[in-house]
Amino acid sequence: MRFVHFVEGSSKGLAIEHAGVLRGLTEQESGYPGTLESLLNAGPDALQAAHQRLSDARLLDPSKLRYLPPLERPGKIVCVGLNYADHTKESPYEQPAYPTFFPRFSTSLIGHGEPILRPRVSEQLDYEGELAVVIGTGGRHISREQALAHVAGYAIFNEASVRDYQFKSPQWTIGKNFDATGAFGPTFVSTDELPAGAVGLNLVTRLNGTVVQQGNTADMIFGVAELIAVLSEAVTLEPGDVIVTGTPAGIGWARRPPLFMKPGDLCTVEIEGLGTLSNLIADEPPAA
Amino acid sequence: MRFVHFVEGSSKGLAIEHAGVLRGLTEQESGYPGTLESLLNAGPDALQAAHQRLSDARLLDPSKLRYLPPLERPGKIVCVGLNYADHTKESPYEQPAYPTFFPRFSTSLIGHGEPILRPRVSEQLDYEGELAVVIGTGGRHISREQALAHVAGYAIFNEASVRDYQFKSPQWTIGKNFDATGAFGPTFVSTDELPAGAVGLNLVTRLNGTVVQQGNTADMIFGVAELIAVLSEAVTLEPGDVIVTGTPAGIGWARRPPLFMKPGDLCTVEIEGLGTLSNLIADEPPAA
Repeated sequence: MRFVHFVEGSSKGLAIEHAGVLRGLTEQESGYPGTLESLLNAGPDALQAAHQRLSDARLLDPSKLRYLPPLERPGKIVCVGLNYADHTKESPYEQPAYPTFFPRFSTSLIGHGEPILRPRVSEQLDYEGELAVVIGTGGRHISREQALAHVAGYAIFNEASVRDYQFKSPQWTIGKNFDATGAFGPTFVSTDELPAGAVGLNLVTRLNGTVVQQGNTADMIFGVAELIAVLSEAVTLEPGDVIVTGTPAGIGWARRPPLFMKPGDLCTVEIEGLGTLSNLIADEPPAA
Repeated sequence: MRFVHFVEGSSKGLAIEHAGVLRGLTEQESGYPGTLESLLNAGPDALQAAHQRLSDARLLDPSKLRYLPPLERPGKIVCVGLNYADHTKESPYEQPAYPTFFPRFSTSLIGHGEPILRPRVSEQLDYEGELAVVIGTGGRHISREQALAHVAGYAIFNEASVRDYQFKSPQWTIGKNFDATGAFGPTFVSTDELPAGAVGLNLVTRLNGTVVQQGNTADMIFGVAELIAVLSEAVTLEPGDVIVTGTPAGIGWARRPPLFMKPGDLCTVEIEGLGTLSNLIADEPPAA
């Protein structure tokens, strides 16, 4: 099942994607099944029922809608740093034996096709193509063996980072949370469409068509099941929580000279089976 | 105005505190004004109206209720590290020239009187008494001069930290987010009851009655207005967002020998004008 959360005119809606065609309903229309958040909260059968209900909904014209993040306000968005050995090598860090977790707040999220904003205060805007995991069934102390049963699906994330702000203090939070830097989408893809744990998917980030990151999710140091097990040793995971699993080598900040994104650039992240997340770069509007 | 968010039987409610007396209504009772979250979202007059409405509500028996965090699911909880010079000196870090932000997720929150849980996986449970700021009016690019007008009120926070997990990777997130380690309360106190920016308030943390931290909010390196201005340079602040402003010297981890909290201990954090937040320590229940 592939779901798209969208806006048409001023109404939000939910669609399913099949063979490149979108069928869906806005929240004003009868039969609208609710947001992905509400479906995930309603339990494992609700997604299936919503998919069924939308299978004969009206055809949507992609040129008339805007994509939203699959989930707009996850209870938590936990990102993982240093999760590909080649990326750790280009970073100033040694490889830790434990996952490096940091947060995104939902105020940083944007959808497919919306501009990633280069903030007024920095020119060091960098891309990070990543696989995002969406929790379906919550829990605490989830075992590695059971972990994948807690996943509802996956999507693509461009975890755009403002590097000078990331390194202004020992914690990366601020450089990872500028408004309109967390691109998420285009499509939520349920687990049944992908290999277990989304292992073995090619991930390619392109800037203006040039390949800048090329990785494979099989190379994650801590895989999806491991991340869920380790996180839930400490933290209750809830339906709709998102884990953003880290980026492979090739970030712009590590290049000599550095390669940062600038207004007019197009950044795309493609993950096998998940599609392509595309965002133009624009400058944050100047102060009024 | 002083508000308390509580549970009585199985019903949540909102109360006001005046001269040590609580008057309030549960969500089942007519006239219930809503949660603090909903009041903050409704704009600046809603708190005042709710206070007025509760001023002749029934008297509550404190022995029959349980305190909840003033806000149970803030959109974001941004904590500040290394914000008192004496605490930075006892830490492994140099004082950064920029605030050190890290997150709490709402799944870690508990109220006044609820036990702080020492997790199964660690014995390094430490206290951190702190001032928490609750945003009333959201915004981005908020100036230092305007910042305090965006604050709705304050409360106390015990930012209990699991030290070995905090330092397992370069980012502190996991050690700061174990379930039932973020004690928040007892009372939300509106800005009009306190000095501007909550400056000059004594803060005392006691473990089993012994003073272990003694600070004053005037000693914060980045004060409340500064924190709001700096954060909002990057991030949109929303009504109900919480900023937890850092802890003064005296943490248990920095002592020789270290002083960690153990089951049966009582940890209290007192801040002038805000009251006292008290929590017993208990062990996380063993695996079933």
